[in-house]
Amino acid sequence: MADDRALNFLDRTLDNLQRAWTELAQTTRQYIGGQLRPDLPDEDLARLRRQMESCIGGQANDISARARAAELGRAYMGLNQTGRMRFLVELATGFDIDRDTVDAAIETVAAADDEPARRVAESRLRQSLEPRWRALLRRFTTLPEGVKFLVDLRAGMLPIARDSVAVRALSDDLRVMLAAWFDIGLLDMRRIDWTSPAALLEKLIAYESVHAIKSWDDLKNRLGIDRRCFGFFHLNMPDEPLIFVEVALVNGMAPSVDQLLDEAAPEIDPETADTAIFYSISNAQRGLVGISFGNFLIKRVVEVLGREFPNLKTFATLSPIPGFSRWLDGILTTGDATLLTAADRKQLRLYSEATQNAMILRDLLARADWRQDDAVAQTLREPLTRLAARYLTKGRSGRVLDPVGHFHLSNGARVERLNWMGDRSELGLKRSYGLMINYLYRPGEIEDNSAGYLGACRVPQSAAIRTLARE
Amino acid sequence: MADDRALNFLDRTLDNLQRAWTELAQTTRQYIGGQLRPDLPDEDLARLRRQMESCIGGQANDISARARAAELGRAYMGLNQTGRMRFLVELATGFDIDRDTVDAAIETVAAADDEPARRVAESRLRQSLEPRWRALLRRFTTLPEGVKFLVDLRAGMLPIARDSVAVRALSDDLRVMLAAWFDIGLLDMRRIDWTSPAALLEKLIAYESVHAIKSWDDLKNRLGIDRRCFGFFHLNMPDEPLIFVEVALVNGMAPSVDQLLDEAAPEIDPETADTAIFYSISNAQRGLVGISFGNFLIKRVVEVLGREFPNLKTFATLSPIPGFSRWLDGILTTGDATLLTAADRKQLRLYSEATQNAMILRDLLARADWRQDDAVAQTLREPLTRLAARYLTKGRSGRVLDPVGHFHLSNGARVERLNWMGDRSELGLKRSYGLMINYLYRPGEIEDNSAGYLGACRVPQSAAIRTLARE
Amino acid sequence: MADDRALNFLDRTLDNLQRAWTELAQTTRQYIGGQLRPDLPDEDLARLRRQMESCIGGQANDISARARAAELGRAYMGLNQTGRMRFLVELATGFDIDRDTVDAAIETVAAADDEPARRVAESRLRQSLEPRWRALLRRFTTLPEGVKFLVDLRAGMLPIARDSVAVRALSDDLRVMLAAWFDIGLLDMRRIDWTSPAALLEKLIAYESVHAIKSWDDLKNRLGIDRRCFGFFHLNMPDEPLIFVEVALVNGMAPSVDQLLDEAAPEIDPETADTAIFYSISNAQRGLVGISFGNFLIKRVVEVLGREFPNLKTFATLSPIPGFSRWLDGILTTGDATLLTAADRKQLRLYSEATQNAMILRDLLARADWRQDDAVAQTLREPLTRLAARYLTKGRSGRVLDPVGHFHLSNGARVERLNWMGDRSELGLKRSYGLMINYLYRPGEIEDNSAGYLGACRVPQSAAIRTLARE
Amino acid sequence: MADDRALNFLDRTLDNLQRAWTELAQTTRQYIGGQLRPDLPDEDLARLRRQMESCIGGQANDISARARAAELGRAYMGLNQTGRMRFLVELATGFDIDRDTVDAAIETVAAADDEPARRVAESRLRQSLEPRWRALLRRFTTLPEGVKFLVDLRAGMLPIARDSVAVRALSDDLRVMLAAWFDIGLLDMRRIDWTSPAALLEKLIAYESVHAIKSWDDLKNRLGIDRRCFGFFHLNMPDEPLIFVEVALVNGMAPSVDQLLDEAAPEIDPETADTAIFYSISNAQRGLVGISFGNFLIKRVVEVLGREFPNLKTFATLSPIPGFSRWLDGILTTGDATLLTAADRKQLRLYSEATQNAMILRDLLARADWRQDDAVAQTLREPLTRLAARYLTKGRSGRVLDPVGHFHLSNGARVERLNWMGDRSELGLKRSYGLMINYLYRPGEIEDNSAGYLGACRVPQSAAIRTLARE
Repeated sequence: MADDRALNFLDRTLDNLQRAWTELAQTTRQYIGGQLRPDLPDEDLARLRRQMESCIGGQANDISARARAAELGRAYMGLNQTGRMRFLVELATGFDIDRDTVDAAIETVAAADDEPARRVAESRLRQSLEPRWRALLRRFTTLPEGVKFLVDLRAGMLPIARDSVAVRALSDDLRVMLAAWFDIGLLDMRRIDWTSPAALLEKLIAYESVHAIKSWDDLKNRLGIDRRCFGFFHLNMPDEPLIFVEVALVNGMAPSVDQLLDEAAPEIDPETADTAIFYSISNAQRGLVGISFGNFLIKRVVEVLGREFPNLKTFATLSPIPGFSRWLDGILTTGDATLLTAADRKQLRLYSEATQNAMILRDLLARADWRQDDAVAQTLREPLTRLAARYLTKGRSGRVLDPVGHFHLSNGARVERLNWMGDRSELGLKRSYGLMINYLYRPGEIEDNSAGYLGACRVPQSAAIRTLARE
Repeated sequence: MADDRALNFLDRTLDNLQRAWTELAQTTRQYIGGQLRPDLPDEDLARLRRQMESCIGGQANDISARARAAELGRAYMGLNQTGRMRFLVELATGFDIDRDTVDAAIETVAAADDEPARRVAESRLRQSLEPRWRALLRRFTTLPEGVKFLVDLRAGMLPIARDSVAVRALSDDLRVMLAAWFDIGLLDMRRIDWTSPAALLEKLIAYESVHAIKSWDDLKNRLGIDRRCFGFFHLNMPDEPLIFVEVALVNGMAPSVDQLLDEAAPEIDPETADTAIFYSISNAQRGLVGISFGNFLIKRVVEVLGREFPNLKTFATLSPIPGFSRWLDGILTTGDATLLTAADRKQLRLYSEATQNAMILRDLLARADWRQDDAVAQTLREPLTRLAARYLTKGRSGRVLDPVGHFHLSNGARVERLNWMGDRSELGLKRSYGLMINYLYRPGEIEDNSAGYLGACRVPQSAAIRTLARE
Repeated sequence: MADDRALNFLDRTLDNLQRAWTELAQTTRQYIGGQLRPDLPDEDLARLRRQMESCIGGQANDISARARAAELGRAYMGLNQTGRMRFLVELATGFDIDRDTVDAAIETVAAADDEPARRVAESRLRQSLEPRWRALLRRFTTLPEGVKFLVDLRAGMLPIARDSVAVRALSDDLRVMLAAWFDIGLLDMRRIDWTSPAALLEKLIAYESVHAIKSWDDLKNRLGIDRRCFGFFHLNMPDEPLIFVEVALVNGMAPSVDQLLDEAAPEIDPETADTAIFYSISNAQRGLVGISFGNFLIKRVVEVLGREFPNLKTFATLSPIPGFSRWLDGILTTGDATLLTAADRKQLRLYSEATQNAMILRDLLARADWRQDDAVAQTLREPLTRLAARYLTKGRSGRVLDPVGHFHLSNGARVERLNWMGDRSELGLKRSYGLMINYLYRPGEIEDNSAGYLGACRVPQSAAIRTLARE
Repeated sequence: MADDRALNFLDRTLDNLQRAWTELAQTTRQYIGGQLRPDLPDEDLARLRRQMESCIGGQANDISARARAAELGRAYMGLNQTGRMRFLVELATGFDIDRDTVDAAIETVAAADDEPARRVAESRLRQSLEPRWRALLRRFTTLPEGVKFLVDLRAGMLPIARDSVAVRALSDDLRVMLAAWFDIGLLDMRRIDWTSPAALLEKLIAYESVHAIKSWDDLKNRLGIDRRCFGFFHLNMPDEPLIFVEVALVNGMAPSVDQLLDEAAPEIDPETADTAIFYSISNAQRGLVGISFGNFLIKRVVEVLGREFPNLKTFATLSPIPGFSRWLDGILTTGDATLLTAADRKQLRLYSEATQNAMILRDLLARADWRQDDAVAQTLREPLTRLAARYLTKGRSGRVLDPVGHFHLSNGARVERLNWMGDRSELGLKRSYGLMINYLYRPGEIEDNSAGYLGACRVPQSAAIRTLARE
């Protein structure tokens, strides 16, 4: 028995030897065939095209097509900036739909004279309108890391798409494919906390785009017992968050992000919290631009938190107002008599020699130190808050001006409360003069709010905001 | 502290009371709105249509659309046979593409006079060709059990699709959607063995379609240490196999399935086996008809087994020949001089009074007891085997006659060896006079075989089969 | 790179070759050394003793001691009945405590004249009282399957321990070791249901000792949605239940096990059940005899079920009365005037010619058909039920007579209700004339009941039982 | 149906209300009973004693005993330093063995006049020697976090044990209990890497005791692809490492830890490494002092790595020599003619005015800057290395002088190579003048080495070390 096993093992070992030699030979042959050069010169393009063609077609031999797709993927990864651009242009122009086929299919539709014929013709037309790159790109979905490859491939298309109509069409179509692939039904919402893998937490640090995470201690604070962080993950990209949101469980609607990020602040018992503040939501995959997950994530998190903490009464964001200062600067240039009330004007004239309302404001805001000077800052508080309320609730061409506002109003939130000096970071002062805004999600109203905003640009708002905006 | 907790708890409890009342009220209102009656009479159709419409459109309010889709799904489940047919017809006719929109889009394509305009027009045309039911069906993918619902919905369409062009179009389109959804990249190949959940094993018993599993002991035998069973599972339907294959690890190519299914036969050490016999492959979801997984499954299993057992040299099936007796009966009716060799004829004349070759065979095969009579059976062995070889290798309109043969040849197998009395079950005797066939998968040749068969109907075969078929 | 990898692979392969040869050589040498013969003749005993010694001692070289223990384990498994007995006797006699050392240690204790000296002496004495087999047996706990081996080893000791004082001491000591090892803190209570591995469910079928499981369908019925099954598992024996209990969720206290095991009976919604019936509890490991898990299991299950189903008000068993008929037969032999009431007597005299109470009963119960004859059965119902109540509540030497009763009363249950014809199986009729008993576990009383029974043999009972027992 | 559900829910909710009141009442009552004060004054001691007693005894009512133990645990946690000391002294003195019982048991042994009587008496004696605290401490093993509590309880005993004989006995006995509990068979060796939970990695940073981890980047470097980290975990303390070892996969035996910890150093392909360097091994639980896991961990890691990386030829540590400078300082005080060779002496005299060998060395080593001065350092290299070799290989009372050396030699390593300036950290310079040592683990020799060292204090060493030590 034991001898049998040993002889058996010898046998297998000799087999392995033989295989190793075969593999060596194959690899060598393959290498003689040669690889694409990094900048993909013209001589290599024809070979690339053949390689691309070889990934399409042939239903039965999926495994080898899969292998060729993997090879093509490696080839792309080996290219430099120039090479990648040439690769993408080749794909966009050489594997688009064929106009002649489309035109012929249209004629057949026109000529169809009974129901079955018409149906067949429509079906052909539909097929003719499908670009050939789809067959190629679909090969990747079966590869390990293939989905991540497609996401990154699209990220690579984005800068080129600005100048190339063809690549733009390719990028748009890949977006449609990815949208189907990243269907909400295939996403997994997972809680991220201090017991999550360090390799994942490191990505939060890298991807956080609203309030930068400064250190592991900062991160740990954001994952404390009175915090929650949730992300969406795709089943085929289990280690990569698509989007994540950071939530603080507090009492009362938090007015300031500085306070939330203060590592020295004591933790509270989350069971006693009455308010969940969504203070940061970040997309993590550039290649998924144009596919929206935030709406769904927020609603799911509201649901989950409501179930875990029955005491929670209020779900609100603490959001930046990224377009406010740019908008205000524009207004100040054109001048606008309604900028200040008489009272404001009286106060502010104490600090500025200008006479026009717009000039007064411009003058004061231009001072590097206005925030340091308490008296000035206090004087500016009212007019700026009022103007921000106006900015946030005013619609144009069916949407409000602020992009973050548009996002939350589309989701069914309402404009709730402005917070003076909610974000004293440099960026916060620059883009919104330190103001932050709470958008409020009231479970019972979300749908009506969303429908009213999307349909008729109706902007739900609290009485306080309405009053501010009207003055 | 403890008192706080208790009071806190009381507080929550009272909240719960309130919620319970609200829920009760809502439920009541909803019920007054009324449910669809099981056979879906005309008066209910309009309501159904509104319900269907309400599931489409509205990007922002996914959660409520999802809830409505769930409601619609429950409504369908509550219908009887008639009601379900009416439901599907309504969906197929009321939510198809709109011809006017298609025609208008075609005109815009024709009228486009520059590249960007053309692209935009093509994109619209593509959209106009997408039936509206897609938006509705897609809602289900985000529901728990939703994917399974779609699969079963399609199973419900299949019998109706025979008579209704509209439902056929719907069914075909759903097949396309499901094919994307059940992309091989989203499937999980899992080994099934005696430590698998009983709830899953029970499904094997129900779904096995080649050699019925007679008992739990029979099943345990098929999951012994010298067996392997693998299935594909979809990530959103983790408890439902899509397809599964049963493999025996043996020495030499198994000639008889009776032997493999013999529970009393001793197990062998799988490490010493040189051959893997795929003796049963069953699709488990009727609603996925037309979407092929078998090809991929076999190749993956070959890969996996090759890695686990380096001693394996041969990968072959032991397959039924389901169309053989029907084909032969046809031949025997028309008569064919080449049916028997002179030697056959001489032998067989001993047992039959007929004179024509076809008549002799028909005569003998018609006897209920031919198999019991060893002498007769032995005499029939050669001519039947020869005829089976002919049947299995003969192509017509680009494919061989036998459906199982077509499947394996498409996958890249070759026709290897015929086994007399390989399947003595009643079904086996009836459809193939007890003959079984080994298809051989040789890793290095799979691709060429497949390409040759699919392209030029070239049927790879062993020398033995070739000789038999030629005689 | 690729070439490097291939050469690297060759390199490793050659290494493997070399190792294979070495292994072959070693194995051969080892085999020449020879194995123990199955019946362990005297010549092999000395070798065995050396092998046993080699497993003890030497802290640093655990790995090789572990290997030697594994070898010893394999040796034991290879022995036949005789060999195993000789093995165990050798272990029990050759590796016990050393009396001389004990006596010497006792003397040192006596001689110790200060506190530290006394402590040291006590510690030595404690050590001297630890049998040497402990060091040997402990080696196994670190082996894969080692714990299971010890459990089975003890099972092997039990029959021998009856005749051998030495083996009894060994067995008792191993029980103590196993009791520490199978501490409740290391056990994992797991729910077993229809999604559990078939390999585990198969063991339920094998180990069920109260009401035999007749088929997989019977088993599936016991794991339906209105049933619960829980088992204890040891972390090092994850696939082996130690004990398991079967529970039915019903309305009202179930009077008959036939009804619970009826596969055709409809399932109920477990949320609506008000009673949990523990109708079977089985120990699965013979080698753990003397270590009690049942008490803990029942309490944990009461806890878990109470949390899952807040509607549950009653937790009770439906238990056999295994000693009743034997006890009654004894009584009937001695005769006892209080056996029948006057009313009983009058009724029963209709069917029996005997005159003495005991004789009447004996006469009727001896008839094979008494149960078939409805009139007789009805007449017997009252006296038998009354006698059973007396049997179940009567204590002797600090415990009730029935072993199952003793178990549940020790755990804190009370004797609640007798069920005529609760178990019509042959065994049920034979041992308890078809009667079954509900023991009731009332969460608030368990502890007091247990203390009262264990301390003062107080038997808690319902008013109905009390009345019956008194008559 | 829906109404039923809602009413049902109401019903349950009212139940919950009732329970909440009951809980509130109980809690209040309990609080009136009062808690122990933090410093455990004499008046509270009696209550504590009763609480302790109530955790012992009573087999049947485990659940309430468990609850009382949990309560006792919480009481301990609520005490301050003084209170904890008094708690432990109470436990050690009030729950020790009872001398009278022991003495009585001894007499019974002496009086036993046949085998069975003797066995019974021995068994009683054994029981009488078991301190009562064991029953109490065992209660904790069934509590969640209970094992961790015992570990920390022992950590709390250690400082007190120095002064209190009773607490020392308690601590020693708890060590024995924990040693059984933390039997190697119950430990789980797990790899720790960058995908491990941050909460676990944080503990590595806290517990690392050889080369402090300075930051998360430092940690990430130690978990790179050419590193391995393994820890032992107990099944009941899954989030707490007991011990962990850090390994670098390198080419050639690493001479310097600075190099290994250099975050800028490039990673190598671990498949190509020929050497595994164990450069840090840290115990993580102070309460487990005296229970050794390192030996087993190293061997298991050697096994696991050897299997994963067949290219590995050498397994060695890179270890500190913590006792060297202290030993050398001692020597230098007493003086020793053999400290320097004539050549050394000649070289060193250039930098020192002293004449005696010991004085010369003392003089030079006392200079704060000797390491900065390359010429001096180079001159010292040889004599210090030689003296270190002597220190490392010299045995006294059956063991070498250095504790780390004793650990590795006990495990079966050999003293392989000294590395000048292997650890330039302040600590490294202070305790071993910057020298580090490689201990080599050769799989084939481990056992013989270990046996030779433990038995006869034979110190295996390389030829180079031997030569150095002899000079």
